[in-house]
Amino acid sequence: MIEITLPDGAVKKVSEGTTPMDIAKSISEGLARNVISAKFNDTVVETVTPLTKSGTLVLYTWNNDEGKKAFWHSTSHVVAQALEELYPGIKLTIGPAIENGFYYDVDFMDHTISEKDFPKIEKRALEIARGKHDFMMRAVSKADALDLYKKQNNEYKVELIENLEDGSITFCDHSTFTDLCRGGHIPNTGIVKAIKVLSVAGAYWRGDENNKQLTRVYGISFPKQKELTEYLELLEEAKKRDHRKLGKELELFTFSKKVGQGLPLWLPKGAALRERLEDFLKKAQKKAGYEMVVTPHIGQKELYVTSGHYAKYGEDSFQPIHTPKEDEEFLLKPMNCPHHCEIYNSTPFSYKDLPKRYAEFGTVYRYEQSGELHGLTRVRGFTQDDAHIFCTTEQLNEEFKNVIDLSLYVLNSLGFDDFTAQVSVRDLEKPEKYIGDAKDWEKAEQAIINAAEEKGLNYVVESGEAAFYGPKLDFMIKDALGRNWQLGTIQVDYNLPKRFDLTYKGSDNELHRPVMIHRAPFGSMERFVALLLEHTGGNFPLWLIPTQAMILPVSEKHEKYAEKVLNSLENHEIRALIDNRNETVGKKIREAELKKIPFMLIVGEQEENSETISVRRHGGEDLGSLSIEKFSDLVSSEINSTLKSF
Amino acid sequence: MIEITLPDGAVKKVSEGTTPMDIAKSISEGLARNVISAKFNDTVVETVTPLTKSGTLVLYTWNNDEGKKAFWHSTSHVVAQALEELYPGIKLTIGPAIENGFYYDVDFMDHTISEKDFPKIEKRALEIARGKHDFMMRAVSKADALDLYKKQNNEYKVELIENLEDGSITFCDHSTFTDLCRGGHIPNTGIVKAIKVLSVAGAYWRGDENNKQLTRVYGISFPKQKELTEYLELLEEAKKRDHRKLGKELELFTFSKKVGQGLPLWLPKGAALRERLEDFLKKAQKKAGYEMVVTPHIGQKELYVTSGHYAKYGEDSFQPIHTPKEDEEFLLKPMNCPHHCEIYNSTPFSYKDLPKRYAEFGTVYRYEQSGELHGLTRVRGFTQDDAHIFCTTEQLNEEFKNVIDLSLYVLNSLGFDDFTAQVSVRDLEKPEKYIGDAKDWEKAEQAIINAAEEKGLNYVVESGEAAFYGPKLDFMIKDALGRNWQLGTIQVDYNLPKRFDLTYKGSDNELHRPVMIHRAPFGSMERFVALLLEHTGGNFPLWLIPTQAMILPVSEKHEKYAEKVLNSLENHEIRALIDNRNETVGKKIREAELKKIPFMLIVGEQEENSETISVRRHGGEDLGSLSIEKFSDLVSSEINSTLKSF
Repeated sequence: MIEITLPDGAVKKVSEGTTPMDIAKSISEGLARNVISAKFNDTVVETVTPLTKSGTLVLYTWNNDEGKKAFWHSTSHVVAQALEELYPGIKLTIGPAIENGFYYDVDFMDHTISEKDFPKIEKRALEIARGKHDFMMRAVSKADALDLYKKQNNEYKVELIENLEDGSITFCDHSTFTDLCRGGHIPNTGIVKAIKVLSVAGAYWRGDENNKQLTRVYGISFPKQKELTEYLELLEEAKKRDHRKLGKELELFTFSKKVGQGLPLWLPKGAALRERLEDFLKKAQKKAGYEMVVTPHIGQKELYVTSGHYAKYGEDSFQPIHTPKEDEEFLLKPMNCPHHCEIYNSTPFSYKDLPKRYAEFGTVYRYEQSGELHGLTRVRGFTQDDAHIFCTTEQLNEEFKNVIDLSLYVLNSLGFDDFTAQVSVRDLEKPEKYIGDAKDWEKAEQAIINAAEEKGLNYVVESGEAAFYGPKLDFMIKDALGRNWQLGTIQVDYNLPKRFDLTYKGSDNELHRPVMIHRAPFGSMERFVALLLEHTGGNFPLWLIPTQAMILPVSEKHEKYAEKVLNSLENHEIRALIDNRNETVGKKIREAELKKIPFMLIVGEQEENSETISVRRHGGEDLGSLSIEKFSDLVSSEINSTLKSF
Repeated sequence: MIEITLPDGAVKKVSEGTTPMDIAKSISEGLARNVISAKFNDTVVETVTPLTKSGTLVLYTWNNDEGKKAFWHSTSHVVAQALEELYPGIKLTIGPAIENGFYYDVDFMDHTISEKDFPKIEKRALEIARGKHDFMMRAVSKADALDLYKKQNNEYKVELIENLEDGSITFCDHSTFTDLCRGGHIPNTGIVKAIKVLSVAGAYWRGDENNKQLTRVYGISFPKQKELTEYLELLEEAKKRDHRKLGKELELFTFSKKVGQGLPLWLPKGAALRERLEDFLKKAQKKAGYEMVVTPHIGQKELYVTSGHYAKYGEDSFQPIHTPKEDEEFLLKPMNCPHHCEIYNSTPFSYKDLPKRYAEFGTVYRYEQSGELHGLTRVRGFTQDDAHIFCTTEQLNEEFKNVIDLSLYVLNSLGFDDFTAQVSVRDLEKPEKYIGDAKDWEKAEQAIINAAEEKGLNYVVESGEAAFYGPKLDFMIKDALGRNWQLGTIQVDYNLPKRFDLTYKGSDNELHRPVMIHRAPFGSMERFVALLLEHTGGNFPLWLIPTQAMILPVSEKHEKYAEKVLNSLENHEIRALIDNRNETVGKKIREAELKKIPFMLIVGEQEENSETISVRRHGGEDLGSLSIEKFSDLVSSEINSTLKSF
């Protein structure tokens, strides 16, 4: 008999050779129907793998990431089989699961493959799946494994096997198909009800550009056809909302090869949008007692040696800047905190002066490999809505709550209502991983959890996820497409105050060490604008959108009146433009729709005579004829409904 | 007979051997009394040097910089004589005139000298001056010259002479004193009526730290005692207004050794001040049709190769930034223009879209040697209030006038009323020095002069002072101490549009090259704030000053009312603070005076009962008891008197 421990702590005594599926059945038939993968003692196993010793077992269904991984990896075998049948003589290499689906890298030899071939591949793969073939793992000797692939002239698999140790090599069989495989499959092919080949792309063997270029076939699969349909709709919507596409259409930002990759240039409309976001946060921060500072974008290397950033990131980041005549070395700043510590250090403070809250829209530079760059979400230079709070340990609780309030205010004002929080705390079993006093950690962690609790956040506590310098709370946002984004962060830091020898004079007249909070409700201006674009599809909240109204004169005759309307709107602080091109009103409306303009104001004979505007809302709703004052009231009240004051 | 040409073009025929002083006398006795130095064929000569050939002659008085130079250099001989008499055995080295006065580097041997010795040196030097000794030059052979100084054991002069050619060596005698000297003296010592030794400092022989450290004695002299008194007062005032001193006192900015020299950190009050300045300019720029953009602080080296900046400044500036994994090179941006050109290039424009006016508060980095750094006026990183206007040649005139309007608005709003403009145009005789079409230059120069004329500027035209890429106009400010500062600049540029291949589609449907205007009314935020500090002594215009009013509760009892007053002022957008330290009102007033707070609001029993404040203006004027509304009206009307809307 062996002892199998389940995640809830329950222990099952079973005979040796019992499989994870047997255990699922012993719990419930319903669970057994849904279990598609398992992990035993931190190793992925098949649901049919006989367990030969005591240990901990986790069972996975489609609803777990691990379950999806097994599902997609298994589908890659099925698609590979279909490809081999449809394109005889091709050479298979590797086929892992990825975040959304799977791929298989294939040397297609003389064959070529394009989008028009996808349906027949999907059709054949689905036929195979319907055969309900079991996935069966078997051990093979290195010699037999090499023998098989040498016969097939598959030098890729041969190379893979040569790097494996004899005794550790396994194959996976299903139907007539066999593949070199470490395991991690669903019970049988029949569970896969929908398969889609998504795209093909070039990929070098082993990611090395000196090797042969293979064809990477991307795909995804689902246990229900409906789920595939939904996924494809989501994909279509995501494409439309791609911030790179919208950023271009709305003329928000651009990139220049000459300036350099990953270095956004904010165009007038984007810069104005960003300024409105900054002004919005500045206003709230002022009320919350923050003070703005301005610091340079470089600092001596020594500064980052002191902060510890150089030891951690120096070699993988932008290299030091030398001066021509003096022996000095500077670095582009990767973070604003060392500069803010130096500002704190420039003045002696007493406990009565704390907390000090220094805020800066600080542009930082971090090297990313060019292949990793992506629009505004992965860049080499970005502006953090950064602030550092220096406070006493006693003030930590209150300050943390204040920061949560500010973060919630930011999220609410921007129309995000679906978010969770993750509280990252120490691994209590590994105290050596963390710096600072255990008592302070205890206090700080409790302060964060209390704050999250008190503010009614939907939060989880993750043990062992804290940074070495302190615990933290991260906000995770679900966007309009259901995708998760990590946004603002609030981190407690015991490390930098020590490294920069920050002090304040306590009521006991002795010097004490303050504690530091790092926080950025937006995260960065670049990433936040990207997220906002993808979340809203460009239909920004009314207070934020670049052009709130487009004035459409019915003909040239009414241009003068249109100008008058524009002036009047400007006096009401409404951002409007006139479209006085020689086009039909219908065409102008369609273009204003495309440009996500919230209001279209049509002005013709009737409007001019009655000193009104005909208001049409984005999407088509006709609000009829309104005076400028009425329209302005409407705009104000819509703005005030999302943008409360802090 | 020889022919002597004077600056006004007049030619005098005189006999060989005539001296500059003879010529001055031949013009007028008044001139002769004032002439103290002269230049013959671009070489400084004595007023008593016999002229032996035809040439051009310039006569200098105290009112010319060259005259002052001769005056101060001559005084250094007199002071050296006094030092030799007072400290026997010292070794003299060199003693030139500088911008304000002169110095003499002396090896004092066993003697020491400090501030308390200055009066006796001044006294003896003045006694010598009163002797009305003529300065007399004489030629000496190298052997005789070496002989003299070897006898005196003066290895410094020996070293100097050894580097001179025999036949070119001259001594200058006056009274009993002889010095190795190239010449350039006033007629006699009697003209020097006031001498002041200002300071002493260490200085290495020949500026090389491997050599012996000498003592540099700084001094200044004047033809009237009154002028010295005025100069010393000015010096005292300048010290008080030194922006580094005021910046510290007013907590505006700081520097950190760890961050690096010449890299200012803006403290909360300074950052807020700077933001007000930026907001002020942004608002005016918006009305003037500018659009804000945001660009990164680095760019690929290639960008600056294209712009030509790399060829011109690359080696003397911050060195390229390398990436760890890819073969890329970036530079800290020394200018914003290349980035703005790339923004212009990101969209195709037609003539109807122009002018485009891109503005950015762009922080740039330029290497300066550490010895050259000075507070906020010579830094390594600074933020330009930059903008680039891209327009057609036809629009240049109008655009230039608009920029002048904006610049004048900025200067007037900040209390600068004493300024001149310098228009820098081509040297027509050296067309090869300039790029671009001669016709375009002609148009641009005329556009600038017309604009300066039309706007009623007090301007001078300097031929040959234009940049190679276009003509420009610079504003020169005289500050409250009468010192000149170069401020905002407006430059026309034909070069970058060509280098970046900027185009627009004309009404003829062909591509044309736009012309570019660079402009920065403040120059840079750092330099402007420094100038403003020194000009106002920290008494900023009311709209700009960090704290407009300090509330002074008479005792603890009135703190609550003080809070109420503060809230009320905040609602009126008046920036106020409460000084609730346990000090007397008298002491609080004195400190508020030192901190340049414009209004002190005293609140006690009487004020609380009548819901008023007792208002005391900076400097002492008592405005009596006012309601918050009345006070707010007063503040508004004072602000509106300097800060008009653009």
